[in-house]
Amino acid sequence: GFLKAAEELHYADLAAVFENLDDEERSFFTAHISIDRFPEILAELPDTLIEETLERFDAKAQQDILGQLLDDDRADILQDVSAEARQRYLALLQPEDMEATRSLMRYDEDTAGGRMTTQVARITSDMTVKQVLEVLRDDINSTESLARIYVVDDQGHLMGKVRLRHLTFSPWDTPITEIMQEVDITILATADQEEAAQMFSKYDMTVLPVVDEFNHLLGIITHDDVLEILEEESTEDIEKMSGIAGETSEETYLNTSIGTHFKRRFPWLFVLAVLAISSGYVMLRFEHVLSSIFLLALYLPMVVAAGGNTGGQAATMVIRAMSLGELEPGSTFKVILKELSLGLLLGLIMGASIAAITIFILPAFNPQLPEGISYTIFALAVSVSLAVQIAVSTLSGALLPIGARAIKLDPAVVAAPAITTLVDIFGMVIYFTAARTILGL
Amino acid sequence: GFLKAAEELHYADLAAVFENLDDEERSFFTAHISIDRFPEILAELPDTLIEETLERFDAKAQQDILGQLLDDDRADILQDVSAEARQRYLALLQPEDMEATRSLMRYDEDTAGGRMTTQVARITSDMTVKQVLEVLRDDINSTESLARIYVVDDQGHLMGKVRLRHLTFSPWDTPITEIMQEVDITILATADQEEAAQMFSKYDMTVLPVVDEFNHLLGIITHDDVLEILEEESTEDIEKMSGIAGETSEETYLNTSIGTHFKRRFPWLFVLAVLAISSGYVMLRFEHVLSSIFLLALYLPMVVAAGGNTGGQAATMVIRAMSLGELEPGSTFKVILKELSLGLLLGLIMGASIAAITIFILPAFNPQLPEGISYTIFALAVSVSLAVQIAVSTLSGALLPIGARAIKLDPAVVAAPAITTLVDIFGMVIYFTAARTILGL
Ligand SMILES: [Mg+2]
Ligand SMILES: [Mg+2]
Ligand SMILES: [Mg+2]
Ligand SMILES: [Mg+2]
Ligand SMILES: [Mg+2]
Ligand SMILES: [Mg+2]
Ligand SMILES: [Mg+2]
Ligand SMILES: [Mg+2]
Ligand SMILES: [Mg+2]
Ligand SMILES: [Mg+2]
Ligand SMILES: [Mg+2]
Ligand SMILES: [Mg+2]
Ligand SMILES: [Mg+2]
Repeated sequence: GFLKAAEELHYADLAAVFENLDDEERSFFTAHISIDRFPEILAELPDTLIEETLERFDAKAQQDILGQLLDDDRADILQDVSAEARQRYLALLQPEDMEATRSLMRYDEDTAGGRMTTQVARITSDMTVKQVLEVLRDDINSTESLARIYVVDDQGHLMGKVRLRHLTFSPWDTPITEIMQEVDITILATADQEEAAQMFSKYDMTVLPVVDEFNHLLGIITHDDVLEILEEESTEDIEKMSGIAGETSEETYLNTSIGTHFKRRFPWLFVLAVLAISSGYVMLRFEHVLSSIFLLALYLPMVVAAGGNTGGQAATMVIRAMSLGELEPGSTFKVILKELSLGLLLGLIMGASIAAITIFILPAFNPQLPEGISYTIFALAVSVSLAVQIAVSTLSGALLPIGARAIKLDPAVVAAPAITTLVDIFGMVIYFTAARTILGL
Repeated sequence: GFLKAAEELHYADLAAVFENLDDEERSFFTAHISIDRFPEILAELPDTLIEETLERFDAKAQQDILGQLLDDDRADILQDVSAEARQRYLALLQPEDMEATRSLMRYDEDTAGGRMTTQVARITSDMTVKQVLEVLRDDINSTESLARIYVVDDQGHLMGKVRLRHLTFSPWDTPITEIMQEVDITILATADQEEAAQMFSKYDMTVLPVVDEFNHLLGIITHDDVLEILEEESTEDIEKMSGIAGETSEETYLNTSIGTHFKRRFPWLFVLAVLAISSGYVMLRFEHVLSSIFLLALYLPMVVAAGGNTGGQAATMVIRAMSLGELEPGSTFKVILKELSLGLLLGLIMGASIAAITIFILPAFNPQLPEGISYTIFALAVSVSLAVQIAVSTLSGALLPIGARAIKLDPAVVAAPAITTLVDIFGMVIYFTAARTILGL
């Protein structure tokens, strides 16, 4: 009963079930679920589970499973296992599968080549519709997508594409040249996967052909790959932007060990904590200012934190625009102008608001101010420093990701946490300097 | 020359070009680019540009453009214009288009129904392959995707699906029932678009049928819609997580006005600044502790900021896992346990590291400590408060998004900025309380 129900599940659901079993239950699962389901299940499992799952089978079963995998999934899986297992698994493959897999494994996992499948329908331009249909009929299971069929010359150069619907609705004697369409958009195998995803979504594509620099057709990227790329890249950005290091290995939050979570969170936390001592050092140096008017402490956290908040907002806008491919390096000046205006505007309005609140509300609490310092001049000192802090932080928040990209760093690493730590230091300096100058301390 | 080159561009590129023109150049563009290109261009433009672009044409041209739009794009476009224009444009449509558009417009823009197209290939189960091919040949331009063809009964209930490849490669007299496949996965028209995107990526789908509660086939969501949904939802999450309010209207960062940027950033900035005064109030209340040992200022920003950083990390992990559909409401306890352990572990290691640094390095600078307080006991006070702050903040960072979801708020709004502001207050209390207690002030 249970097993029959399980057999009917979608492979993605089976993989999710498997991931959440304990060791003994996994043995039961691998022993009782039909081996035909495992190629698809394996392709859905997180990297860290792949080898231990394959090792639950004998060599014969491993050979079956590896043989039935799609070639891009097979390459991915072999990239995720130990060197020892990789050699053993490769040796189990048919010679032509081994060759194809080795050539796919040459590409980095995050490139177009690392994402493509070589199982693409290839035809030549001298064929008729009937001949193409005969070729495809034999090939129907080894071509991941028939949504586009590609025309190549005898050296494998990409010549054009044919849609299945045009094959279906054209007379059998139609020459392919008559229904063949131009291919305008291709991607180099060495390009970053993010670029492939941006092309897909900009041009509403179903299939993106991958070529080398001589326009040889190497493979295709399909829509399901793109969904994975987009999720991976967004997760990567979001995590980096929060000071979380390293990558996820496709594991769910709950199945990731405490140790792994710790290793990903500790490094930035530690670096930022050490850097934050600089803020404390600035505060130490301004002891006399704070001691003269301790009421300054009331607004200190506000001025400092406003920098982190507004710098984080600016950085987020800029980083996201970069990730979506909206910001060319040439538009740096426009970004600076925009964020400078925004910083000044936000600073002005925030400063004015806080000044108003201070002048109207603070006297009601009757706090101690030294002789000769009115509530108005005190409010002025606070709001000038708030305005300057916001303007400086907004600009810093925009400049840091741009600078990071200029030196080939991922802009996402200089988001909120790094910027907050930096502008905290600025905030201390700005606040105490403004107070000392305006209040004459 | 220029115009001929422009005519050959992809509609997505034409839309990008148009978006970056000034008013006069846009007039030239609309006057000289063939009107046939405008349905596709219009569908790619940001919401705020749609009405002003359509208004550059006369009623006859508007009718042409609106008539040629895909039905889901048409509904979107009509949702983005003023009420006056909407009535005027609707009146230009053919009666059946008007009907279809009105029914699509009933669905909220962010639901499966708001994303679907009704232009789907529908056949009945009593047909043969030949009959289906004849029906589809007439329909080939009004069906957005032939990747799946759906079988419905005479009341429009969804019965099954047929793949174009099976039609192509089966003899003409094959009954449809023989090649028809079951449809396991459908989505309700009222479901959130995010759910549709999660199904697509989990089950590697090309097309997702949209049904009502009686399993009537209403339309389909196609892969290009899903790419847009994923980008929109990730942008929404990333922006909310940085305290940026409201939505983007599909505009690029550079084309969004300063006023719009301001309106999206100011509200949270203001609220958080006002709340930050609480941190200052705590500091005011502990004046005597800080005055007794002003060296405490050196570590104050570090302890406070570590809370924001670690709370932000925890919140990010939890929010992202929720967005990817990984965290069921039932797993709250597991999340709490995980983040509590992590908080304690991070706090312990961070506290120990900072204690070690303090004990070994601080004496070299010979800072002033009152009689009877050793560097060791001072380091203890700092690191105990750091450890407690990190543990409390990590847990808060995980709990706030969970709590937000429980009261039907978007978890993304309680990310880093809100959590930082909150744990800043905790940090002040924890630091000064630990110092007072451990150092006996
Ligand atoms: Mg994998
Ligand atoms: Mg992998
Ligand atoms: Mg690969
Ligand atoms: Mg698109
Ligand atoms: Mg694939
Ligand atoms: Mg990447
Ligand atoms: Mg990236
Ligand atoms: Mg719209
Ligand atoms: Mg819509
Ligand atoms: Mg998938
Ligand atoms: Mg669509
Ligand atoms: Mg949403
Ligand atoms: Mg969301």
